[in-house]
Amino acid sequence: MTWEDIVADKRTRLEATIPQEWRLKELPSQDNVMDVPKTCGILTDEEITITESSATDLVEKLAKKELTSVAVTTAFCKRAALAHQLLNCNLEFFPDMALARAKELDEHLEKTGKVVGPLHGLPISLKDQFRVKGLETSMGYVAWIGKYEEKNSDLVELLLKAGAVFYVKTSVPQSLMVCETINNVIGRTVNPRNKNWSCGGSSGGEGAIVGLRGGVIGVGTDIGGSIRIPSAFNFLYGLRPSHGRFPYGKMANSMEGQETVHSVCGPLTHSIADMKLFATAVLAQEPWKYDSKVIPMPWRQPEADVIKEKISSKGLTLGYYNCDGNVLPHPPILRGIETVVSTMKKAGHTVLPWEPYKHPYAVDLINGIYAGDGGTDVFNTLKESGEPAIPNFGDLIKPDLPKIDMNELWEVHLKKWAYQSEYLEQFRIFEEKHGKELDAIIAPISPTAAIRHNQFKYYGYAAAINLLDFTSVVVPVTFADKNIDKINEGFKALTEIDKTVQAEYDPEAYHGAPIAVQIIGRRLTEERIMAIAEEIGKLLGNEITP
Amino acid sequence: MTWEDIVADKRTRLEATIPQEWRLKELPSQDNVMDVPKTCGILTDEEITITESSATDLVEKLAKKELTSVAVTTAFCKRAALAHQLLNCNLEFFPDMALARAKELDEHLEKTGKVVGPLHGLPISLKDQFRVKGLETSMGYVAWIGKYEEKNSDLVELLLKAGAVFYVKTSVPQSLMVCETINNVIGRTVNPRNKNWSCGGSSGGEGAIVGLRGGVIGVGTDIGGSIRIPSAFNFLYGLRPSHGRFPYGKMANSMEGQETVHSVCGPLTHSIADMKLFATAVLAQEPWKYDSKVIPMPWRQPEADVIKEKISSKGLTLGYYNCDGNVLPHPPILRGIETVVSTMKKAGHTVLPWEPYKHPYAVDLINGIYAGDGGTDVFNTLKESGEPAIPNFGDLIKPDLPKIDMNELWEVHLKKWAYQSEYLEQFRIFEEKHGKELDAIIAPISPTAAIRHNQFKYYGYAAAINLLDFTSVVVPVTFADKNIDKINEGFKALTEIDKTVQAEYDPEAYHGAPIAVQIIGRRLTEERIMAIAEEIGKLLGNEITP
Repeated sequence: MTWEDIVADKRTRLEATIPQEWRLKELPSQDNVMDVPKTCGILTDEEITITESSATDLVEKLAKKELTSVAVTTAFCKRAALAHQLLNCNLEFFPDMALARAKELDEHLEKTGKVVGPLHGLPISLKDQFRVKGLETSMGYVAWIGKYEEKNSDLVELLLKAGAVFYVKTSVPQSLMVCETINNVIGRTVNPRNKNWSCGGSSGGEGAIVGLRGGVIGVGTDIGGSIRIPSAFNFLYGLRPSHGRFPYGKMANSMEGQETVHSVCGPLTHSIADMKLFATAVLAQEPWKYDSKVIPMPWRQPEADVIKEKISSKGLTLGYYNCDGNVLPHPPILRGIETVVSTMKKAGHTVLPWEPYKHPYAVDLINGIYAGDGGTDVFNTLKESGEPAIPNFGDLIKPDLPKIDMNELWEVHLKKWAYQSEYLEQFRIFEEKHGKELDAIIAPISPTAAIRHNQFKYYGYAAAINLLDFTSVVVPVTFADKNIDKINEGFKALTEIDKTVQAEYDPEAYHGAPIAVQIIGRRLTEERIMAIAEEIGKLLGNEITP
Repeated sequence: MTWEDIVADKRTRLEATIPQEWRLKELPSQDNVMDVPKTCGILTDEEITITESSATDLVEKLAKKELTSVAVTTAFCKRAALAHQLLNCNLEFFPDMALARAKELDEHLEKTGKVVGPLHGLPISLKDQFRVKGLETSMGYVAWIGKYEEKNSDLVELLLKAGAVFYVKTSVPQSLMVCETINNVIGRTVNPRNKNWSCGGSSGGEGAIVGLRGGVIGVGTDIGGSIRIPSAFNFLYGLRPSHGRFPYGKMANSMEGQETVHSVCGPLTHSIADMKLFATAVLAQEPWKYDSKVIPMPWRQPEADVIKEKISSKGLTLGYYNCDGNVLPHPPILRGIETVVSTMKKAGHTVLPWEPYKHPYAVDLINGIYAGDGGTDVFNTLKESGEPAIPNFGDLIKPDLPKIDMNELWEVHLKKWAYQSEYLEQFRIFEEKHGKELDAIIAPISPTAAIRHNQFKYYGYAAAINLLDFTSVVVPVTFADKNIDKINEGFKALTEIDKTVQAEYDPEAYHGAPIAVQIIGRRLTEERIMAIAEEIGKLLGNEITP
């Protein structure tokens, strides 16, 4: 079979996963499809209500038997089917398996009166990088189609223990190494707010499906922005925890075994409350007893409480920057930063400029790491099936790059470690200067709002944080507005890439695109940073109050 | 200058660090020099008492001004000078600098009434791998002689903050990659209990000096047994914490930047009480704000309390093994394991056999990692000065080995991760089978008691635990006894190396050599494992009761 044959067969099988009654009569012509699930008549009113609830509410109602898992799972399966028709986001869709699991959980609760865990009966969507027993994990590679998993990824296993229901695995860019979502298996996934915009990547399918509420908690991975960019582009919260907080064992991946910069798992959600539900549910399973890379660190509520204390006494100290020295963000993003800064100042907190420490150096360093094997792993996988590379991929890894040699790699490790520790020194200098603990840094996560296709060129805002292995939470802020976010007339390019990025800005084309920021803290500060993100979300009116 | 000239000059300078009044009239002829410090007349009675106190007692007395740091530092400097004359253990010795620091601390306490930190005024010895501003860090390499440090290693900096006084940096084997202590700079360091035995390595100078109480807390590093072997050979406690617990930033090292298996810092002490003093003092400095590799994990007393609770209810569950499937230990070590097992059983705890999971595989894997750059780094450093390789080194790394290529390295990473996680699965299987949490595993740390020179051939008992990154605490048990530990007549070799190791046993030659075991726990279980080690030490009569 040629790779085109394999793809055709896969598409036919994928097509067949959507029953006739969940199919749209015709595809809408408008760019923004956010309202289609509510208006198309396929979902009942209850199903609309369910899919627009928070996960926190759903698990409460499931536990009280006010909702059955079958009802909740059916609702999300139907909406995921719509999402796929509208956005092309599913790589695996398995409603039958999901409903069988949901039924089991309902019966268990009926019989024992007990939930199996904190996520009892809750559907969770997964990036197609997680292995689920019995399913394929193509990860957008043609060569991997037709291989069926015998084991679950560790996180899948633990989410099952916690009571989750899986029903869909969503699309990714070929190789995972770019921040848009396109592959030769199903093509491109688009943004529900505008089909001309990217849903982000590499967890782009998760961004799209959760954005359209075809999922309530999505699980992605992030090695250079892959959770945070799709969160930002879909007006979602996204957590990039530090390495070692959540399990990554038995995941599929490109460049598996590359450990200079670790990819990490994390959730994309509509609220910090739901993010916390996910984090506490996973940590309650003691993942460090399964995956050797996980640190034995349960959820530390006292860490969150330190922040809550500071919030009530108006005592947060935040840094912020709006330019990393490589690329100036588009006007909507600058306004996003300014909005968060002024909101927090108005709430009585201290917000001070933060000098991003040698970020261009960090970006160069991490780009070298991504290309450490000269693309051998990725290009070998493409060669297996004969499929071509997607266009975006070439921005990051070129096939003619030399491999790094072992002693060169060790040099890179030393540079990275020194840089990370120097960054900590910057924290200490700041804290000494201001006599206060620095609680977090507010920063752009992408230089642009949800971007037009094939225009994602600069990964630096996200990737520098991966190099630092800092905790980062993306917070949705507002939307680009052509009447406010005018072209930056006084712009003077810092670098060639700065020029390219800024040239892409067009107030008309970006009107309505989601604007986000990231909130950054030192390594393994998830509890603190989530608490700060929650407060920002509440003050902006974008966070539910539990 | 030839390398021999450089060495001659270094030796002259080192010789000059010992004042005339601290010099022995003549070197004793006996093999065991343990009593010489007490009988030679150079130390006053008070100095003998000070140097034979615990660190825990000393810091208490220092804080209460019952002792001055100058008095304590003088006592340890004198005894370290003796240790060097007897054992050849010092690579850097700087009593003047130490006494100036001690005087400052005494004055500070006098003036402010406050200690600077939990180690106020306490002398601590360092392996010559720690960088101390103004001093050399030759690490046993001729090429590094004459380079003076401008910065302290992070741990040095934090110990200073905690109030420590540094006075000596002790010898290591060339390259650090072997478990005996010999280099071309000062030659061989020997065991205070018998000059024909090794003091262990690579933190062998620490083992020797603390063994003779020329130091009370020594700090070493461990990538394949380098803290634990010298502890075992000198009847000391030794902690190999998991990677990320203590700072390693700005240390000198061979193969710097190699991160597949991390070297870690840890203490060698006469008691768990002193080990705890060190651990809590370091963690109180929040090392994660200095070294990016350190996990923000303060001392967790509740973890230690879980164990204390189990101890009082006779509820510990321990596993044990006495053979790793590669090499059967010598009779004294088998007796050491049996002694600990029966002691713990007698105390009412549950002790069950543990099947060491694929240890020979683990040992092969880690040996490949040590040789990852085909020796390039080490041999280049030797080439710089022209010095020859020490004989032992060739056992581990041969100059003609090929370098691992990047994609091969990633394969190794995956194998290591899979192995580590499979080992965790073995814990779960054990716990399910017995319906109890497995608190720790009792195991040999070396197949031999303190070994005769040039006979250390098998690193596997130590190194497998490094591959797992498990917490391990060495506990001294007893001494080899020619009347009990007879030659193993029924011995049948499992492997070629097994045969070689067993052939080295000679009841006469090993009579009186220290016997130790290691107590092993999952990653980052320092509090729990130290609490178990303390109980074992107490029951054996080898631990002070605070």
